[in-house]
Amino acid sequence: MFVRELTKPDGRNLRLYSRHPIPPDIEAPAAAVGMPPNPHLRWHPLRGEWVGYADYRQHRAFLPSAQHNPLAPTTDPAHPTELPAGPYDVAVFDNLSPAFSLFAERPEPDPIVDTCPARGVCEVVVFTQSPAATLGSLPLWHIELLFEVWADRCADLGSLPAVKYVMPFENRGVEVGVTLHHPHGQIYAYPVVPPVPARELEQQQRYFEERGRGLLVDLVDAEILDGRRIVHASGSAAAFVPVCARYAYEVWIAPRRPAESICDLTPDERAGLAVALKTVLLKFDALWGKPFPYVMVFHQAPTDGLEHPEAHFHIELYPPYRMPGRLKYLAGSELGAGFFTADSLPELKASELRAIEVRVE
Amino acid sequence: MFVRELTKPDGRNLRLYSRHPIPPDIEAPAAAVGMPPNPHLRWHPLRGEWVGYADYRQHRAFLPSAQHNPLAPTTDPAHPTELPAGPYDVAVFDNLSPAFSLFAERPEPDPIVDTCPARGVCEVVVFTQSPAATLGSLPLWHIELLFEVWADRCADLGSLPAVKYVMPFENRGVEVGVTLHHPHGQIYAYPVVPPVPARELEQQQRYFEERGRGLLVDLVDAEILDGRRIVHASGSAAAFVPVCARYAYEVWIAPRRPAESICDLTPDERAGLAVALKTVLLKFDALWGKPFPYVMVFHQAPTDGLEHPEAHFHIELYPPYRMPGRLKYLAGSELGAGFFTADSLPELKASELRAIEVRVE
Repeated sequence: MFVRELTKPDGRNLRLYSRHPIPPDIEAPAAAVGMPPNPHLRWHPLRGEWVGYADYRQHRAFLPSAQHNPLAPTTDPAHPTELPAGPYDVAVFDNLSPAFSLFAERPEPDPIVDTCPARGVCEVVVFTQSPAATLGSLPLWHIELLFEVWADRCADLGSLPAVKYVMPFENRGVEVGVTLHHPHGQIYAYPVVPPVPARELEQQQRYFEERGRGLLVDLVDAEILDGRRIVHASGSAAAFVPVCARYAYEVWIAPRRPAESICDLTPDERAGLAVALKTVLLKFDALWGKPFPYVMVFHQAPTDGLEHPEAHFHIELYPPYRMPGRLKYLAGSELGAGFFTADSLPELKASELRAIEVRVE
Repeated sequence: MFVRELTKPDGRNLRLYSRHPIPPDIEAPAAAVGMPPNPHLRWHPLRGEWVGYADYRQHRAFLPSAQHNPLAPTTDPAHPTELPAGPYDVAVFDNLSPAFSLFAERPEPDPIVDTCPARGVCEVVVFTQSPAATLGSLPLWHIELLFEVWADRCADLGSLPAVKYVMPFENRGVEVGVTLHHPHGQIYAYPVVPPVPARELEQQQRYFEERGRGLLVDLVDAEILDGRRIVHASGSAAAFVPVCARYAYEVWIAPRRPAESICDLTPDERAGLAVALKTVLLKFDALWGKPFPYVMVFHQAPTDGLEHPEAHFHIELYPPYRMPGRLKYLAGSELGAGFFTADSLPELKASELRAIEVRVE
């Protein structure tokens, strides 16, 4: 993998990645300049968690037309986008309106709750130069490259003292609030271990202490043995609708070996995960013959300086549709109680996905 | 308050409530018969929480036309709705497609995770006979009556041995997935204390043990003293955008005294809460001159047979809009990490709401 590190005129980082050498004369274009980010956190005493405040994000770009796509390569220097033209496959740059910033200043103390600067990093990962592509439509070598890019960024961001947890994710589709259609994901480097990963790690730690084995490796093995909810399995990776799915078409993808983080994957495991991910995404789009929206998140070990033998890198996909044209809305029970009720059985949804044949190459 | 308890032909309960006596000859109509509910729970080992499965809910009623409104009083006996005609103000009945049922059977054991019958109750609370009304538009006496109805149902459902937590809630607007426009709420009587109230009670319990006072009563007093986020305050109740709001226009309403549950409220406190709730809802609708969607949930002490001096009944309102026409989508960070980032400051949103004058009577 070849990388070229550039700095935008406003100081933001830009990294270009390719399987081939990138010409040295490529330059970062001078794209739009955002409001200076100065986010802060406030403690939510009732939930026992931090909440971020970033009021300059209110007016960020919202579904611009194709000719104003900030994630396409710059073709007209008079109208620069976030990215240069040139031979590269993937680009990563600092979000113009980030929820976290390494330069956030200490906020005024609040008389009621604890506050602190929201020091962290928000990056945008542009999956490809092609605005009409999708993650699932990329060739396997390109998705493998993406796993290397994600690992590179997670290692880099995770080494920052301010950062306690790094989470790559993708929101796909207007149904989950996408504001730019060009295929891209994001990486949040959090100043704290956020509530959901913290809870998962707590459960995994207890299991590991009791049994000396990983919760997720046992779950993956059990799902493969059971077989009813498997969508794809190989020697190095598995994709399945988990027995405890909260969304109708929820899928988890994990390496068979409990790698702690995306940085610990072997080339074989990256290749296996690329096949699994592409398989699932193509099945999603083939299911109803149209682009299938989803939220995709990567869970892994925190970067808090501690050992995490209990952690097991995995991908969770939450598609919002429960049937054609019907969204699963999160409302009273889900948002107010944290209690999910599924309208379908994971076994049935997995068999729908399993039945779809797709070409993965 | 007068109550008439009826049983529908399919065995479901129906209760009619009014400030005036209800004629004894009123009968429950024979509405649609649903699939026999047999929901179950599965343990989610990674999150350490239960997930409900109720596959017969997939085909429940979805935005029927006005003449097929199942929550309007029956006018033509050949086309019965869920409710009779007659002089009553509020009606409560068992949901036709419930997420929980007292008659749920023990599911087949699963080889991977624990399962159990989803024994509980789901009720529908029809706020008024008028299909075009809204909760906020009801006169104060009617909202006070509703607080009595909610308390009656919470006491009744909470006394069931299967029930560990009772949560009244309202989803308002298609933006939060409403499937019937007639003004109504729901009550879920859960077989477990769900994750969010459990987490809040844990935080409140720790605070109470350390200081001998309630977390929320201290927070409410501090918000009133601070004043910047108060939307409405009286001697018995307060409404405010909390200092740690996760949604732009999030509002909490609480009695000033730390009543453990809605069942413990005095008539004065009910009256104060009715004024606070009506004030907030009218301000919401007046904000942009159109119906303002929200999810409203009631948090209180569990009904697990234990003492809960730490609990403090309160209402949380989560409106999904962050600005006119722009929803706050829950995506990667919120759903996958449990980490919320707000695009606005609570102080500013509270001042917008405070500036709106409404007539409460």
